[in-house]
Amino acid sequence: MKISILKENLKQGLNIVERITGRNLTLPVLNNVLLTTDKKNFLRLSTTDLEIGINWWGLVKIEKQGGISVPAKLLSDFVNLLPEEKISLEVENKTLFIQCEKYKTKIKGQDIEEFPIIPKIENKEFIEIDGNRFCQGLIQVVEIISPSQVRPEISGVFLSFQKDGIRIVGTDSFRLAEKTLPFESKIEKEYSVIVPQKTIRELINILGANQAKKKIKIFFSPTQVLFESSMEELSHPQVQVVSRLIEGEYPNYQEIIPKEYETQIILDKKEFLNQIKTAGLFTGRINEVKFRIDPNDGKIEIFTQTPEIGENRSYLLGKAEGKPIEVSFNHKFISDGLSNIQSSEVIFGLNKESGPAVLKPVGDESYIYVVMPIKTD
Amino acid sequence: MKISILKENLKQGLNIVERITGRNLTLPVLNNVLLTTDKKNFLRLSTTDLEIGINWWGLVKIEKQGGISVPAKLLSDFVNLLPEEKISLEVENKTLFIQCEKYKTKIKGQDIEEFPIIPKIENKEFIEIDGNRFCQGLIQVVEIISPSQVRPEISGVFLSFQKDGIRIVGTDSFRLAEKTLPFESKIEKEYSVIVPQKTIRELINILGANQAKKKIKIFFSPTQVLFESSMEELSHPQVQVVSRLIEGEYPNYQEIIPKEYETQIILDKKEFLNQIKTAGLFTGRINEVKFRIDPNDGKIEIFTQTPEIGENRSYLLGKAEGKPIEVSFNHKFISDGLSNIQSSEVIFGLNKESGPAVLKPVGDESYIYVVMPIKTD
Repeated sequence: MKISILKENLKQGLNIVERITGRNLTLPVLNNVLLTTDKKNFLRLSTTDLEIGINWWGLVKIEKQGGISVPAKLLSDFVNLLPEEKISLEVENKTLFIQCEKYKTKIKGQDIEEFPIIPKIENKEFIEIDGNRFCQGLIQVVEIISPSQVRPEISGVFLSFQKDGIRIVGTDSFRLAEKTLPFESKIEKEYSVIVPQKTIRELINILGANQAKKKIKIFFSPTQVLFESSMEELSHPQVQVVSRLIEGEYPNYQEIIPKEYETQIILDKKEFLNQIKTAGLFTGRINEVKFRIDPNDGKIEIFTQTPEIGENRSYLLGKAEGKPIEVSFNHKFISDGLSNIQSSEVIFGLNKESGPAVLKPVGDESYIYVVMPIKTD
Repeated sequence: MKISILKENLKQGLNIVERITGRNLTLPVLNNVLLTTDKKNFLRLSTTDLEIGINWWGLVKIEKQGGISVPAKLLSDFVNLLPEEKISLEVENKTLFIQCEKYKTKIKGQDIEEFPIIPKIENKEFIEIDGNRFCQGLIQVVEIISPSQVRPEISGVFLSFQKDGIRIVGTDSFRLAEKTLPFESKIEKEYSVIVPQKTIRELINILGANQAKKKIKIFFSPTQVLFESSMEELSHPQVQVVSRLIEGEYPNYQEIIPKEYETQIILDKKEFLNQIKTAGLFTGRINEVKFRIDPNDGKIEIFTQTPEIGENRSYLLGKAEGKPIEVSFNHKFISDGLSNIQSSEVIFGLNKESGPAVLKPVGDESYIYVVMPIKTD
């Protein structure tokens, strides 16, 4: 291999692919980035942790085809420090030679054959969506998941591509979040997959870092999913994230989303969140916060107490309707839900002392957060 | 105690004093902040870890004198979350009652008698200096210190208040930094003290967070030092940091600062620092980087090699004079020195393969960084 590439371009690619390397002690080649020339004008960078694979392509001048894998963190740290110039990369004798005006550098590497294969998806059908909105939706769901050996099917984000939109769902069995995004174009076929939490986190990082690229294509196989952003002007992929899927059937979660509430109150989100956080400072081991809503005076009272620490009592006012209620929640679950809501006002809907409650933004039907009370008897 | 205080004011005070609490597991009262009324109109907040003590004063309305100590982190976290309002604080039965419009809160505490005494300094003489410049000088010195049981006298920052200025010195025996600040006013008496690194770090945080207060007063006793900033309009202290001093005699460090260099080169600081950092990526266990300076072509070459990783060779050009030299340094020591220099150009002065070398800013005689080479035979 012999190529030349702009520092800024190579740096950008390495920063994207490097992220998933460096976690593997037993198989050191997984800490490497694979550099290979691809077609006429492209350098491809690839990394994998055997669960996720990332490919990145950049335009380069190729004098000689070939490739090598070298430690990803070392190459990335090195390139980040280089001046903004053209860099020449050459492979000879399992060594990467890097040269620019004032630098002559050698990095020991491994032959491309020793690098694991990153799966491809042969199925040419894909779904296309707005990358930014997709990323925002994933952020509102992904962090409530708590990977579980016992129930692997809820260890990932459920993506359901249906004719009327995409549903993005996460749960840890105590609470559940669902975001619905409309499709801009019609889809021919419906797909549902469970994608590992780790993959979704990487995807958020890459989509977030790469916001200029607006459209994301999603390809499916029975065991894999591939997310792709393109260099549109060149009709060529820019970044691909390919991941294994989680097997199993996602629970029929829609059954547990309450459609009506016995008590409902509309609150200022920021003030509610602050009061939950102060309440949280006074809770004990089970994080229990007591709520008392009286629709007659439109008041929600929040109370916590731990004898060794002290107690906290606060209230806020809102538009309330329905029956008076006293109910307890884990304060972390309430504040997680509120943090995922972007509107300034929030609907808190409740169903007796033990039924599922709901937090959702006012004026936005696309997001719902369901949370179970703490049973206190 | 019964007082009222603005949230913003109390928050600011707690953020300053809270920092040194929460590290002590064996003596829980050290995790507390002591609140006491002081004179007519002041609330005093105090914390200590038995080595450092911090006092803060704020203007309040006092209805009843008194005090209590409560967990500092809990109170600080709580107050941070409160709305921007007047807060009422009341002590009764070892409990702090906090009230504002929508909150009623109790925090369990301890009587003021159970809180350790924070030392006072009776000596009324003090030295006054510009807080900002003092803080910047401390930053340029404090982090090269490496606390040592064997040589406690170099485990702190040496502050020497002399007629012609203040010298701020730190060393870890491999390198040494000295910053000189001029006095704006004459001093009557010379003082030299060794202040623990931890105290200096706290002082930097407090001075840095509190930049509006320009002047710092320093008071001395044989075993303690006190740094004080004031509310000038009220002629009252705002913040005090009092610390034990390190006993012992500071080494006669000026002997090791070379006055002349056999080889000298003036370099662009940013480029030099980047090349040292890239070189550092290719070093092995002892962090050795080789330098070769040839004043005939004004070139400094930087070379590192580790067989398993690879090698890196780079150069930069500068104004050089003196004899050609080949010498090795620990790359971290060179980059630490460069990072503490603020000018765009730096003087690198060397004395043979084993004599102390110097880094100093061009056009600023107030800072010097001395570093020993690695002996390579």
